[in-house]
Parts: sequence; structure tokens; C-alpha cells
Amino acid sequence: MREVVIGVDLGATKILTGAITTGGQILAKAKFPTCSGERDAGEILDLISNSIIKTIEDNCFAEDEIRGIAVAAPGPLSYPDVEVVDSPNLGWSKLFLKDELCRRLGRQVIVEKDTNMAVLGEYFFGQRYNCRCLLYITVSTGIGGGIMIDGKLYRGSGGGAGEFGHMVLDPRGPKCKCGRHGCWEALASGTAIAREAAGFVSQGKGEGILANCAEGEQIGAREVGDAARKGDPEASAIILRASRYLGIGIANLVNIFNPDTVVLGGGVALGLQDLFYDSLLEHVCNNVFALNSRNLKIEMTKLGNDIGLWGCLASVLYSP
Amino acid sequence: MREVVIGVDLGATKILTGAITTGGQILAKAKFPTCSGERDAGEILDLISNSIIKTIEDNCFAEDEIRGIAVAAPGPLSYPDVEVVDSPNLGWSKLFLKDELCRRLGRQVIVEKDTNMAVLGEYFFGQRYNCRCLLYITVSTGIGGGIMIDGKLYRGSGGGAGEFGHMVLDPRGPKCKCGRHGCWEALASGTAIAREAAGFVSQGKGEGILANCAEGEQIGAREVGDAARKGDPEASAIILRASRYLGIGIANLVNIFNPDTVVLGGGVALGLQDLFYDSLLEHVCNNVFALNSRNLKIEMTKLGNDIGLWGCLASVLYSP
Repeated sequence: MREVVIGVDLGATKILTGAITTGGQILAKAKFPTCSGERDAGEILDLISNSIIKTIEDNCFAEDEIRGIAVAAPGPLSYPDVEVVDSPNLGWSKLFLKDELCRRLGRQVIVEKDTNMAVLGEYFFGQRYNCRCLLYITVSTGIGGGIMIDGKLYRGSGGGAGEFGHMVLDPRGPKCKCGRHGCWEALASGTAIAREAAGFVSQGKGEGILANCAEGEQIGAREVGDAARKGDPEASAIILRASRYLGIGIANLVNIFNPDTVVLGGGVALGLQDLFYDSLLEHVCNNVFALNSRNLKIEMTKLGNDIGLWGCLASVLYSP
Repeated sequence: MREVVIGVDLGATKILTGAITTGGQILAKAKFPTCSGERDAGEILDLISNSIIKTIEDNCFAEDEIRGIAVAAPGPLSYPDVEVVDSPNLGWSKLFLKDELCRRLGRQVIVEKDTNMAVLGEYFFGQRYNCRCLLYITVSTGIGGGIMIDGKLYRGSGGGAGEFGHMVLDPRGPKCKCGRHGCWEALASGTAIAREAAGFVSQGKGEGILANCAEGEQIGAREVGDAARKGDPEASAIILRASRYLGIGIANLVNIFNPDTVVLGGGVALGLQDLFYDSLLEHVCNNVFALNSRNLKIEMTKLGNDIGLWGCLASVLYSP
């Protein structure tokens, strides 16, 4: 009998809900805008549970076909009670996410931090079984991480491990949305790239970047990347700066964890890899101890933007 | 029958050799200068093995009383073959330390990186059994770390984990002896404190600090600490700067690992704790996610400078 897992990847801008068979076939996928600025937590939780029910109904999954339901959500999330303690991305706090979702759906739901789901997906479906230590780093609007050690998800003492984006790399650096200065996220994420571009524009520069923006559209990492590919020197300088900081942060993590493999994912890393990957690799290998670069692999995820869904499948099958 | 472990803590300036009973009583301790600048690796290895033989002979330990022999050595050390790949502290490279010591002594010797030994000592003899994640940070001439996760020493993929001192915290910061700029070690170690003090002196300042130095003696963290305790503003500024960086680095590690407990040791941390501990604690708690500061303990080791010897005992008894 076919068995499926319903997975949800909750982001600040969109919700991705999908159904994957336990054999690894994606049967359905649907996106919904989160509108986290306009909706309160209760409304977004309703949206998630409705998207799960809709996926089940639309695909006519029988009750006994459903192996499990899992949700990836932005952190920080406590463990094991899965409380959103204080989420800068969603603006939620003191919310028992798992309990709320279980109550709405009347069944068990696995809920994990999105980056934890991603590293589970990468380990089990990106075929990383040979890794004693696998680090997953997502670079998108923010920067986050997931850690697998000896085939187990490492969550830390209470669920808070892997907040790589809030490693301070330059105390005199730009302000981060967490309130501190010079967090990795404030230096190398999509937000950082967009901020640098906006800085050029506010000084009357950045023409090459603006030329890649549709009228009235906000400048983002994608537009800066497009301009850099066309040889725009300001865009190239912004990408170079972000990739240099990306390299510093990864080198730090390599010296701290001595991982076998670092996998990069997230919209910005996937979208700009042609612009930064080679220099990043070189920077990291030249800036860690020789012992830590032995056998080190730094790779892009092959699971793309579905990595969270693959993680949901992994979390149900291998209940970590 | 009484059983003893012979432990050696090898440092760049001194070798500490001791004998501890399996019941936890230190029976003997002796220090020898390492003179790593004047002696080659072979001579230092002879010194270590001779100090072990001397400890056995001086204390008339019978062969069947000796439960094991263990050596803590500066890293990086590969695992499991215990090769010194490239030690900035001792200037050694490509040396199979364990094999060399076993051959000299004609018996099994456990060899671990000094900070790994220290975290083992702290876990088993500093009574940290309740920690899911224990980080040990030594602040002395350099900064290093040891990691215990779920009661097991975490060494990373090949022995290189825990190189906390080479986490870059300020790419525009002072040069580190590893060659990079702004490593934690270059900002917050005893070496960093001494460098800042020398900077004042070279500008004709630092009188209050110099007043604590014996004629012809080099300024070190101890002298700066003494001057700060007497209210010297330059010394106080140096200590404040180092403790601010200490706080940034620890906050980073707390956001990365979400440990239960961070234990500090090493000459500088132990010697200057009255000057930095309170502000450090406040800084870390204010600069990590709320979830990561829940239940977080930051404490000084109670094992003092013998922590390496306690680690040697732990490594023999609980062979990690």
C-alpha cells in the first residue's frame, strides 16, 4: 500500500505544503502566502492546518495511507515542548506550536525548526549517511543552521542549537534585526545584500543594479546578482563582500565542529552560487586548520527549495 | 589494592606530571620546563617519558598498581591516529605523538588534545554529569575548547573540533599567530592583553601597568590585572576590552551549541575572574536568544590548573 507524509514548510512569506510518498515521490505541492504582517498566529495556524486538510482531500488520501504529518517552522523552537519562545521572523512568542497544531488537526504532528528539518532532509535524502558531522547552512533572508552528529539531530540543551546566523563576526558591523551588531546574518544574508544595494542607491549610485529592477520593485539579492553577472562593479563588490563574510562564518564553524560536510541551501545561496561558490571554497580551505580541511566537503544541496519537505518525510520515517 | 593513573599535561612552557589514584587522590605532582624553543620534538618526548618513569620510580608504584598512562597535548591532534598535524604552540608537525610515546615507554598511552582532556576532567570530576552539552573554554596564552555531548567527547570528523580560539570575531582585528586577523585568541587571550599593554608602553603610556612589573620582566595579563585592581584606567580599559570580546565569543558559542553549561579555565580566566566574571555573565545572557539563556550556567572550573591531570584520570577510567 502507498503511504504518504504531509509536510509543511512555514516561512515568513510563504507556506509550502506537500505530500511525499515514503518511497520518495512528491505527489503534490502547493504554496500559500503567509502574510505574517497582517495575520496573527492563530490565523496562520488555521492556514497551515487547512492546507494540510486540503492536501489530503484534493489527493483523496485515505486515512490509513497517511503515515504522518510534519511541520518545519522558523526558530527558535524549544525542545521537547516545541514552544516558539521568541521568533524574530514571525513576531511570535510564547506559543506552543505543536500543541496548537495537534489540537487543530486532532492528530499527532511532528514540529521541528526549519533548519533542523532541512538537515534531516539532507542527511537522509541528500545521502549523507557517511557524515559523522553534517552542518546545513541556509542563506536566504536570514542565515540559519542545522547540525547532525553521528546520525542524530543535535538540538542542544533545549532546542536552541544551530543559531549560526547570530554568530557575531564584526562587533562594529551593521545592526541585525535581533538588535546586536555584526551578526553573520547582518553581513552575508539576502537582507544584508539588499541593504548594501539600497545604500548605494540612496547615495545616487547603483545604476547598474537598478537597471535590473522592475519599476517600483524592491532591490533584493536576485537583482544584485543579475547586475553582478553583467559586470556591474558595485553589484560585484556587494556580492564579494557578502561571500567574504560567508567564508569567514563557515571557516569559524569548520574550526569549531570539524565537520565532514557543510551543505549550503536557501534562496540566496542557491540563486547566487555561480557568483560565490569557488571563492568561498578557497577562502574556507585557506582559513581553517590543515586538520580541519582534510576530507572537508562544502557542497550545495541538491534538494533545492523542497529540502524542508524532504526533512518532514525524514522526521516521520526516522522520528529523530 | 590502590590503583594510580600517571597523567602528563604538556604545555608550551611547562610539563606537569602527576599521579592520581582511581579514587581521586593526587599523590604526586612535578613540573618541568618545556623549553619548546630550544628543544626539538624528540627531546621533549624524551622529557615526557622520563618524567613518567621518574614519577613511577619516585613513588615506588608497582607495575600492577598502574591503571594507565595519559598525556594531554596541545592541538591540533588528529583522531584516531593522534598525529600532531600542525601545532602553532609547539612548532611541531607531522608527528605521531601517541606512537612515539608508546614506543618510548613500551606500553599503551592515551593521548588527547589538552582541551579535550580538560573537558573530560570537568565532566567526570567537576561533576557535570547532568549536562547534555558541556563546553569547556580555556583562556591562557591562547584560547581553546573542549566539547562534551551526551556524555561523550565530541572530536569532530578527524579530531579537529573545538578550535574556538580561531573563530574570527573581527576581520579588521589584530593579527593572530595562526596568520589570520581578529581570531578570538588574538582579541581576548593573555597574549592579546599583553599586546595591548605593550602598545600603551610603546607610546610612552602605561605607567600604572609598568609599576606592577619587576625590572626587566615582560608585561603579562597578571601585571595588567594587578594594575586594574589598583584602579589604573589603562589597565582597566584593556581588561574591559578583553572581557567584552570574551563575552562575544561565548555568546556566539551559546547560540551555536545551546549548551547547559560553559566552564571557563586556564591561567588568565582563573587569574582575572574577579575582574571580568560579572560583566561577562551579563553580556552573554543579554546577547543570546532567550531560549539559549534558559538554564544556562557559566562557571569557573573548580579543578584549577590540575584540570588536565583530572582529565588524564577520566580518559583512563572512562576510555572515551
